[in-house]
Amino acid sequence: MIALILGAGIALVLTMLTMPFYIRLLTKKQYGQVVRDDGPNSHSVKSGTPTMGGVVIVLSVIVSYFATHGILTLMGRTSTGITASGLLVLLLFAGMGLVGFLDDFIKIAMKRSLGLRAWQKIVLQAVVGISFGVLALQFPNKDGLTPASTAISVLRDTNIDLAFAGPLIGLLLFVIWSNFIVTAATNGVNLTDGLDGLAAGASIMVFGAYTLIGIWQQNQACGTANALEVCYTVRDPQDLALLSATISGALVAFLWWNAKPAKIFMGDTGSLAIGGAVAAMAILSRTELLLVVIAGLFVIISASVIIQVGYFKLSGGKRVFRMAPLQHHFELAGWSEENVVVRFWILAGLFVAAGLGIFYSEWVVAL
Amino acid sequence: MIALILGAGIALVLTMLTMPFYIRLLTKKQYGQVVRDDGPNSHSVKSGTPTMGGVVIVLSVIVSYFATHGILTLMGRTSTGITASGLLVLLLFAGMGLVGFLDDFIKIAMKRSLGLRAWQKIVLQAVVGISFGVLALQFPNKDGLTPASTAISVLRDTNIDLAFAGPLIGLLLFVIWSNFIVTAATNGVNLTDGLDGLAAGASIMVFGAYTLIGIWQQNQACGTANALEVCYTVRDPQDLALLSATISGALVAFLWWNAKPAKIFMGDTGSLAIGGAVAAMAILSRTELLLVVIAGLFVIISASVIIQVGYFKLSGGKRVFRMAPLQHHFELAGWSEENVVVRFWILAGLFVAAGLGIFYSEWVVAL
Repeated sequence: MIALILGAGIALVLTMLTMPFYIRLLTKKQYGQVVRDDGPNSHSVKSGTPTMGGVVIVLSVIVSYFATHGILTLMGRTSTGITASGLLVLLLFAGMGLVGFLDDFIKIAMKRSLGLRAWQKIVLQAVVGISFGVLALQFPNKDGLTPASTAISVLRDTNIDLAFAGPLIGLLLFVIWSNFIVTAATNGVNLTDGLDGLAAGASIMVFGAYTLIGIWQQNQACGTANALEVCYTVRDPQDLALLSATISGALVAFLWWNAKPAKIFMGDTGSLAIGGAVAAMAILSRTELLLVVIAGLFVIISASVIIQVGYFKLSGGKRVFRMAPLQHHFELAGWSEENVVVRFWILAGLFVAAGLGIFYSEWVVAL
Repeated sequence: MIALILGAGIALVLTMLTMPFYIRLLTKKQYGQVVRDDGPNSHSVKSGTPTMGGVVIVLSVIVSYFATHGILTLMGRTSTGITASGLLVLLLFAGMGLVGFLDDFIKIAMKRSLGLRAWQKIVLQAVVGISFGVLALQFPNKDGLTPASTAISVLRDTNIDLAFAGPLIGLLLFVIWSNFIVTAATNGVNLTDGLDGLAAGASIMVFGAYTLIGIWQQNQACGTANALEVCYTVRDPQDLALLSATISGALVAFLWWNAKPAKIFMGDTGSLAIGGAVAAMAILSRTELLLVVIAGLFVIISASVIIQVGYFKLSGGKRVFRMAPLQHHFELAGWSEENVVVRFWILAGLFVAAGLGIFYSEWVVAL
């Protein structure tokens, strides 16, 4: 618990204090956002706002994570220390952030609305994603637990194991499966970004949920030989909780500067990094399919794009929504930006509550 | 847990569905807000927005509370049933709401900016507050526990007992003390109201905190003979958690309609009711002084008014803030309304987190 407070606190203060300097730096260099041509016209006023706020978020989280473990050691507290799971989250978080950064940087340096070419982005994301997938099945701890497993998970690993035809097929299928989750999550957060505070606020709630899940899994780890059948086999739940809390802390501080009118945007640096971390949390905490509920807002926003594009092609030019992603549909329907943001936050909160409710309900039934 | 989900869910759905009808009714009757003459000029656009949204909140919570207990009984689940503590919360919640309603109604019916006369308001609030104080010391359960006690509480009752000179003096001092808390809380929420979503959002977090505290106190009730010294003697923690969750649910739905640009305001009906419920939670959960941290946003906003008025009088006309309460200071400093709201929500969230941290930290130290 001390660890969580330390991690979140350091990340919050660090992000809060460095962001103004970063904003000033970007403004001086005239590194402002080039607003997507395909958003609502009212958004053209956003052009010129500094972006790539994700850089500060990612760096703050990395520094805070290691600083927290350092301080815990200096305090002489018995802690988990730096774990394989923790480093894997950082790999996906910082790796995806780096891909996003390249994308953002090219946009800004070349002053054009699109960054990396599509194939470049796919290759880079695949390199990070495949590395994560392969490494997540290594590093068994003394109980033989690896950070991830080849079993599909809902509230914990199920009987559906991708390694049904041997470990090599298992590894291959797991890499595909985990990359699917990563791609869905990064795209989901990326599509949710675009209104001041929307993605940051919704993400805070998601990481808040994973903080609670981590604490819970730590308290009900199967190692403690609980009399009940309801327990969890997760390699490093405590360190996952620490990282979730740390990312939440950084995002709260980011939201301070991102609240409308935003002084800075997170950019693809931020949205891809957050998406990567969300996917890592789901995979490593063995709650892969529960993510559909916990991150329900990202899911429905992604679905709106799929529906819009699919229907457009099938119908030969007709649309379901005024504009996709969904938040722009409501903007064009006359809702103000801040109205959409607060209402979507409420939806995000209800999804998170439902996800935690499902996670906990098993206990209610069992007890 | 089922109870909390039921209560919060019913209140959420009920408030969500009835609010549009209520808004239409008020609009038809032209019962719009008369904006205080002493707010920023930019707020004059708010004039005419329907108010007294608190009526729906209060009624939804009452219906949801009894409906939840009814459903639990029908389901045959062993629950606490309706408790003395629960009814006392409703007394202060609905009682203060009624005082606020009279105030609002007079403003609207007479189309003037001020409602009840100051002395009328004080007398009515005193009647409700004194009734609460006297009744809260009655109704001992089988263990002899009354809903409130004459001891001053922080994380639980301390040794400082107002009944040091006998029960009658104790009752008298407790009534004064509890009325002080009630007055501070109702004024705090009332002063925090005024920007779209601000008071509702901050209150959701406070009731969220009291939901967690209630669950905690239930799990660590002293009756279960915990080996540790750290346990809680609270009469009905589970029912307090239920009511906190129910009020949160109603407020989330209210926030949907109250998000900028607000379709409805809570009015004094809402802010006094919420303040009453907050005070009741602190007194009945035996965390009176912890409320200063948990409801820290309301405290600093109240303090800004006290400082402003005090300094104005002492200095013979000078001001500390551009305008009080604090939120208007920042508005006049050039922050947009939604920017102030989101940043104040962040502050409210940090205060709530700090309050829960203090509540929990004792365990970290003890274990």
